Amino acid sequence: MARITLLISCPDESGLIARITGVLHRHGGNIVENGEYVDPDRRRFFMRTAVEGVSDVDLLERVLKTELPKEADIKISTQERKNVVIMATSEPHCLGDLLIRAAFGDLPMNVKGVIANHGTLRELTQSFNIPFHEVSAAGLTREAHEAQVMDILDREAPDLIVMAKYMRILTSGFIQRYPDRILNIHHSFLPAFIGANPYRQAWERGVKIIGATAHFASEDLDEGPIIAQDVIPVTHSHGPKEMARNGRDVEKRVLARAVRFLLEDRVVVTGNKTIIFE
Amino acid sequence: MARITLLISCPDESGLIARITGVLHRHGGNIVENGEYVDPDRRRFFMRTAVEGVSDVDLLERVLKTELPKEADIKISTQERKNVVIMATSEPHCLGDLLIRAAFGDLPMNVKGVIANHGTLRELTQSFNIPFHEVSAAGLTREAHEAQVMDILDREAPDLIVMAKYMRILTSGFIQRYPDRILNIHHSFLPAFIGANPYRQAWERGVKIIGATAHFASEDLDEGPIIAQDVIPVTHSHGPKEMARNGRDVEKRVLARAVRFLLEDRVVVTGNKTIIFE
Amino acid sequence: MARITLLISCPDESGLIARITGVLHRHGGNIVENGEYVDPDRRRFFMRTAVEGVSDVDLLERVLKTELPKEADIKISTQERKNVVIMATSEPHCLGDLLIRAAFGDLPMNVKGVIANHGTLRELTQSFNIPFHEVSAAGLTREAHEAQVMDILDREAPDLIVMAKYMRILTSGFIQRYPDRILNIHHSFLPAFIGANPYRQAWERGVKIIGATAHFASEDLDEGPIIAQDVIPVTHSHGPKEMARNGRDVEKRVLARAVRFLLEDRVVVTGNKTIIFE
Amino acid sequence: MARITLLISCPDESGLIARITGVLHRHGGNIVENGEYVDPDRRRFFMRTAVEGVSDVDLLERVLKTELPKEADIKISTQERKNVVIMATSEPHCLGDLLIRAAFGDLPMNVKGVIANHGTLRELTQSFNIPFHEVSAAGLTREAHEAQVMDILDREAPDLIVMAKYMRILTSGFIQRYPDRILNIHHSFLPAFIGANPYRQAWERGVKIIGATAHFASEDLDEGPIIAQDVIPVTHSHGPKEMARNGRDVEKRVLARAVRFLLEDRVVVTGNKTIIFE
Repeated sequence: MARITLLISCPDESGLIARITGVLHRHGGNIVENGEYVDPDRRRFFMRTAVEGVSDVDLLERVLKTELPKEADIKISTQERKNVVIMATSEPHCLGDLLIRAAFGDLPMNVKGVIANHGTLRELTQSFNIPFHEVSAAGLTREAHEAQVMDILDREAPDLIVMAKYMRILTSGFIQRYPDRILNIHHSFLPAFIGANPYRQAWERGVKIIGATAHFASEDLDEGPIIAQDVIPVTHSHGPKEMARNGRDVEKRVLARAVRFLLEDRVVVTGNKTIIFE
Repeated sequence: MARITLLISCPDESGLIARITGVLHRHGGNIVENGEYVDPDRRRFFMRTAVEGVSDVDLLERVLKTELPKEADIKISTQERKNVVIMATSEPHCLGDLLIRAAFGDLPMNVKGVIANHGTLRELTQSFNIPFHEVSAAGLTREAHEAQVMDILDREAPDLIVMAKYMRILTSGFIQRYPDRILNIHHSFLPAFIGANPYRQAWERGVKIIGATAHFASEDLDEGPIIAQDVIPVTHSHGPKEMARNGRDVEKRVLARAVRFLLEDRVVVTGNKTIIFE
Repeated sequence: MARITLLISCPDESGLIARITGVLHRHGGNIVENGEYVDPDRRRFFMRTAVEGVSDVDLLERVLKTELPKEADIKISTQERKNVVIMATSEPHCLGDLLIRAAFGDLPMNVKGVIANHGTLRELTQSFNIPFHEVSAAGLTREAHEAQVMDILDREAPDLIVMAKYMRILTSGFIQRYPDRILNIHHSFLPAFIGANPYRQAWERGVKIIGATAHFASEDLDEGPIIAQDVIPVTHSHGPKEMARNGRDVEKRVLARAVRFLLEDRVVVTGNKTIIFE
Repeated sequence: MARITLLISCPDESGLIARITGVLHRHGGNIVENGEYVDPDRRRFFMRTAVEGVSDVDLLERVLKTELPKEADIKISTQERKNVVIMATSEPHCLGDLLIRAAFGDLPMNVKGVIANHGTLRELTQSFNIPFHEVSAAGLTREAHEAQVMDILDREAPDLIVMAKYMRILTSGFIQRYPDRILNIHHSFLPAFIGANPYRQAWERGVKIIGATAHFASEDLDEGPIIAQDVIPVTHSHGPKEMARNGRDVEKRVLARAVRFLLEDRVVVTGNKTIIFE
């Protein structure tokens, strides 16, 4: 039986859950997963519902619109698998992990292609029968380079763009073109160690734990809404190189976790934060 | 505004959430926290809702009963603080942690008393102005000893009995008298290392992680529904004594976590498992 | 400068560290990493030392033998990369993770081949230019099947055999042929849930944490010395399938961790336990 | 048999371990725990050794001085229990945890007194028969207030001053008076969220993990050498208040861990970092 996922956000008012679940029930929907959250500061209501048995999704959406406040944001996903383009530079751990998960059905996505600014990961990508687009930035302005990348992206029209250790800074034009669709993995426990060489920064500060952060790309570098984070302990005997090596394991599992949340429509952005319906 | 908590469980059928939230809405209830779960094997529906604004709780309960399947189990809690009796033997870490949390408002409970089969913890208990009942088991049958304990319990009529390292085995009569009300902390990651001396068992097996388990006491020793678990890494250099020392930190935080779940009506028992509405 | 690793174990006596480090110093050795452990029950001394600058390793070994108790077990490793054969059945997550790590230099090993009792993982393996040996067990006795596997193993003569979710039980003849050289990953936090379907067992018991265990294969199933363990929290909403999915992430990182320990000569087996010099 | 602990740090050179352990052996010392570390950037050697059986500790120290480079820093501890003064403001969780641990022998320390700038924790402290010194800062300059605190400290001459949520900023004069002896717990995962209200900062940033950091107090606020850190996951549903509540559990276990390291002479400061011999 086809499953659809609803993500609803609107100003909070009394009786919203009763109204929404009532509509779902009258349209044949059987709720299989449900989560709500009210942001007490903004007085805003958020709800994610996975439903089976709805025969006419368009009708459902129209009825929901009439029943909910008119500022309501209603997103209904009927896809079983989303389309994804992965961007990378030269590190294989995140890319390889995602490709294996996609190939064997662990993550419900179609990887439409990999775009990289170096050729290092070509063979790895192609061994999974995924198109590899090398777009070198050599001799190009940032804008000219991104124009080539955007050509490929616009052709593939992915639901999600995953930066799997893509080590170039994005222009604000690029980021604005794909709002809430660019997922980045930063190799530190943000907001600690923003910017370049976070493992070296962590080593210089002498921290006892390092981490990684999956977040939406935003115009302010490393400041976008955080989706997932995880950490791993380190000791004085870890230099920047050992921290980076151990950190890679955290990076790939945090990134895979965030990708799953997005593929399963579990993420809502509100202000500079995310609500995650686990 | 008074907050009430509903815990509902009944055979699953379509439209339950709409029906329940509809009733709540019509009785002035504003939902501040909500969680549902359907057990796919038993086809059973579970829901926890925290509501503000309901003026007539008895009426609400009567109406809910008429609207829900008649096998429905409806539990409405209006208490801000539950009454608790703590049982212990001679280790101070769990008891002391709970007493500090209670004294300073971290856990919403009234500790009505501490019952112990030794006098070791008397001074600690009394320093928090809590009655301490030493009930020695010396020379008594298990039944005779428990009879004295039950006298105290029946007088205090606690909502919850917390075994904070009470190191005696309970009779089935005792356990049956307080169904789903006796919380125990076991010093291992159950089901590993059931029974006596779990840290020694863990050391003998050479595990690299040890843990603790908070569970409802049941007639089968260490087999009751699990409420919370946590772990801590160990190395070859930890003997049974060091494992026990490190384990105590896990025990006390797992126990406090489980106590909080129970005080906040977040736990439903189904079969030999728990559903935790976090 | 070439680095060698010493693993020494012998009955404990006073002055061992001084004697061993004295010998190393006199042979030009500069200690870059050092760890010792004395098992207080067996009165046995264990030491791992990584040294640079020793020109005559054979001479060093001969001298150490004369200086140490004659029951001493001295193992000197001069290899930069060990030879490994991986065995698998049909799950890709552990195998794929190891192949990427090997291909990109994250783990210092040469993967000489993959042996599997099904063909599922052929393409994945071959995309890394690693020989894939399908040895079907169909219609064969356990001994006849293992004889074919051992033919391949004996030809490759690996330093380490990694069972990356090889789902067949090994005979005691097979295990005895490769003592302390067969690493297995078990999909539970041993000793909980020994045997088949551990995720189902975990779900039936209602645990709140699941785990994975890397251990040496031994004649008693799932009873061999434990090398590494890790865990992940689960909730009542995880069925056996979701537990297995989340568990796979733990399995692959625990296995990679144990493989690294073995490749870097950080593991000593003593009785049914391991000492890990991290 | 009396146990002594050596902490040695000196410029690195070949043969140091052999020389030091040789001296220990010749003075009857039996090594029961040993750790070394060489800082590769500063070429500096660090060693911690726990030894039993040394009869003349003064002689040992004199001999070590002649055998080691003259810039060597040698610290020999013969104390079984260190003297500690705890400073606090009004939160009970860290103080209470330390008092219970001290009272029941979990941490080897004599708590000589508690100094607080409010009276809130008087009863808790006195219930453990520990002197409570309320030193109100009302109407006083920072210097005048600290002068009163220093009077008490100088009288008690503690080996270690533990700031168990002492919420006042220290002057640089105060800090310089007790170098490497003031341990502070900061309620964030440093260097994230330096300064006031870290849980509010964490909530505003929308992090998915919060933490706590035990560090030596230094003149630059929250910039001193880190001793221990730990973290706990949070979700969008945690406001600043819930983050603070969950954070308290992390704070108290991180602080207790750091206190243990210091009481057992496991910490060496080098530059702005610590080496922890676990």
